[in-house]
Amino acid sequence: MHTEYPRTIVLMTDFGVHDTYVGQMKGVILSLAPSVQIIDLTHSISPQNIVQGAFFLGKSVPFLPERAIIISVVDPGVGSTRQAIAVETDRHTFLAPDNGLLTAIFQTRKIRRCVSITEQQYMLPLRSSTFHGRDVFSPVAAHLATGVSLQELGKAIDPGDCITIPMPQSNSCDQGESWDGCVIYTDHFGNLVTSLDSTLFDTEKHWMVRVGNGNQIPVVTTYSDVQDQELLAYTGSSGMIEVAVRNGSARERLGVKEGYPVKISIQS
Amino acid sequence: MHTEYPRTIVLMTDFGVHDTYVGQMKGVILSLAPSVQIIDLTHSISPQNIVQGAFFLGKSVPFLPERAIIISVVDPGVGSTRQAIAVETDRHTFLAPDNGLLTAIFQTRKIRRCVSITEQQYMLPLRSSTFHGRDVFSPVAAHLATGVSLQELGKAIDPGDCITIPMPQSNSCDQGESWDGCVIYTDHFGNLVTSLDSTLFDTEKHWMVRVGNGNQIPVVTTYSDVQDQELLAYTGSSGMIEVAVRNGSARERLGVKEGYPVKISIQS
Amino acid sequence: MHTEYPRTIVLMTDFGVHDTYVGQMKGVILSLAPSVQIIDLTHSISPQNIVQGAFFLGKSVPFLPERAIIISVVDPGVGSTRQAIAVETDRHTFLAPDNGLLTAIFQTRKIRRCVSITEQQYMLPLRSSTFHGRDVFSPVAAHLATGVSLQELGKAIDPGDCITIPMPQSNSCDQGESWDGCVIYTDHFGNLVTSLDSTLFDTEKHWMVRVGNGNQIPVVTTYSDVQDQELLAYTGSSGMIEVAVRNGSARERLGVKEGYPVKISIQS
Repeated sequence: MHTEYPRTIVLMTDFGVHDTYVGQMKGVILSLAPSVQIIDLTHSISPQNIVQGAFFLGKSVPFLPERAIIISVVDPGVGSTRQAIAVETDRHTFLAPDNGLLTAIFQTRKIRRCVSITEQQYMLPLRSSTFHGRDVFSPVAAHLATGVSLQELGKAIDPGDCITIPMPQSNSCDQGESWDGCVIYTDHFGNLVTSLDSTLFDTEKHWMVRVGNGNQIPVVTTYSDVQDQELLAYTGSSGMIEVAVRNGSARERLGVKEGYPVKISIQS
Repeated sequence: MHTEYPRTIVLMTDFGVHDTYVGQMKGVILSLAPSVQIIDLTHSISPQNIVQGAFFLGKSVPFLPERAIIISVVDPGVGSTRQAIAVETDRHTFLAPDNGLLTAIFQTRKIRRCVSITEQQYMLPLRSSTFHGRDVFSPVAAHLATGVSLQELGKAIDPGDCITIPMPQSNSCDQGESWDGCVIYTDHFGNLVTSLDSTLFDTEKHWMVRVGNGNQIPVVTTYSDVQDQELLAYTGSSGMIEVAVRNGSARERLGVKEGYPVKISIQS
Repeated sequence: MHTEYPRTIVLMTDFGVHDTYVGQMKGVILSLAPSVQIIDLTHSISPQNIVQGAFFLGKSVPFLPERAIIISVVDPGVGSTRQAIAVETDRHTFLAPDNGLLTAIFQTRKIRRCVSITEQQYMLPLRSSTFHGRDVFSPVAAHLATGVSLQELGKAIDPGDCITIPMPQSNSCDQGESWDGCVIYTDHFGNLVTSLDSTLFDTEKHWMVRVGNGNQIPVVTTYSDVQDQELLAYTGSSGMIEVAVRNGSARERLGVKEGYPVKISIQS
């Protein structure tokens, strides 16, 4: 199973970028697997926001290296009886609390194996009750990277018994002539990432987007298709419809937050 | 002394995560030691807050890889006559200004060697007077990682002559039935990390925590031991008592900052 | 051309540190070049601020490893007809949109080769129109790191045909007895980084700095040359004059922003 090049361990958490939490996780990983590559996918999932974490994980998976081990920790139930799970797909291995964080993986990827992580020899000997990212998931990932197999982590479970949660959706109305969705997230630039999945629409037609009760915004290809400071909608880099202001912030312009309703319609 | 796996260089600073300071340090390190692993422990120590830096360093050391070289820079005296020191323990090598930042290391670790860093051939040829993190500590760490020994960096000094500072403490009152401390830090989640060291208490007994003049807060095991949005206290991942709101922010709920008094008492 | 040690890929963007954009770039890079080192120079260039990006890139280049590949993305024209370029100097390879971001490289480095990046086999097969950092620059950098040559990326172009932009400057007045400049940037500590290049001044003389209509501030060597909470000016780690408050924030003290005028004069 080993190849000559280093495996990658990917971290996605709601721990933020300021505390020592992520640094301690990396210290544990490199203590046990000194040659792995580590990537921070993001540590800025909104605290305890499992839906947001599940969304970003699903959208990022196509860009992660083969055989990467992905630690995902958005874990309000840490220290309780919630299970820790390890899930193997055809390309990756995922470690996460069993709380829905892997919903997009279960829904869109082929699951090869799924186990409940219980074998304590792959965890830190002293475990806190609030930081399993460091004390459970990091050492388990490092052991996987150095050759431990998924089956050794604990007993096999049925993926269908794992928790999944409702994901943000596009809902069709008017025989597919319009779709309802919401703002999932606003990014660093103030762009609104919506739940409207552009693969659902016939891109030969002309579409318009409305955010709440606002004006119609044309769906174009990229920023430079509109004038400076003008609103636009386009297929974002995650495949979802996004709303932006060219060289500005749609979040500020529209005063919009996560959850706000959005509608896309064929231009009449 | 060399082994086949790469050594790790750990960075802890008050440089923040937005400027190019940390990136330039990494550039210097990889210019001289292209195969090392680099970990960011944190760059968000409050500016010039040596006590906070010393606390996080002490708490993080158990999780860092064997033979790691730790660069710690919280350095209000940079460019003055303050010494730069290199300190070797049984597991790690620390590089820091001699200003108390290594206090927890000196107090809790076995010191093998300690030198004053003076040999200029291990520094950048052109040195600024305000950024020794890049111009002194980074190249010195890289040289250590590639085989230079501590003794070559400068003359040996007595660890007892290095500066230490008072660290946040738990003070016993009432024959150990209660302890006084303070809030050291509030984290990304708004959890209050206190100076109350849980290893001092008899965990068979039931304890309560008071923040300032607030209500008694029960010490429990983890978040899910209380209801949503309720206050709790527990032994945090650094071994200190922490105060949190389940799925919320204790910092916002209690309006509390660093330095605020905290008391833990046996439940009566 | 290959050596035994890993090459470094350096990332500088305006993507911020919170979204998954940078993590996805790293995923793409390690998918194709699993052994490279990756450094974040900074991801906090002000959105769409090409001048600021060009400044930091120029100042950071001396500290980057030999043979590093630097991806710079501040790209308001992404998805339009603007070119993507690859530029080879005697020490590094730069990938960027052709929008002036490499101005300091063109002005101060010896250019060996310059190409327009057009060969699609080195890009991701599916490309978004808004995230060429992930879909074009990251895979191209990974291919360069694994042995593809610059010439294979597209046709050679004349560096003189690439876009350059006016950079912040020091302007001489009074026969070199004073110089005008501006605040380019304020850093994490609240220090003001100015466009006054200290290599232009005769450092044998005594200089004073004025920010806007404020009081004269003495140019000294380092923070400890003035009292706690006092203003000082000094040659910063980028070679530019900076203004700071010892153990405080000049940005807050002076209420100053990017672009504010600054003047340095010989002390009379």
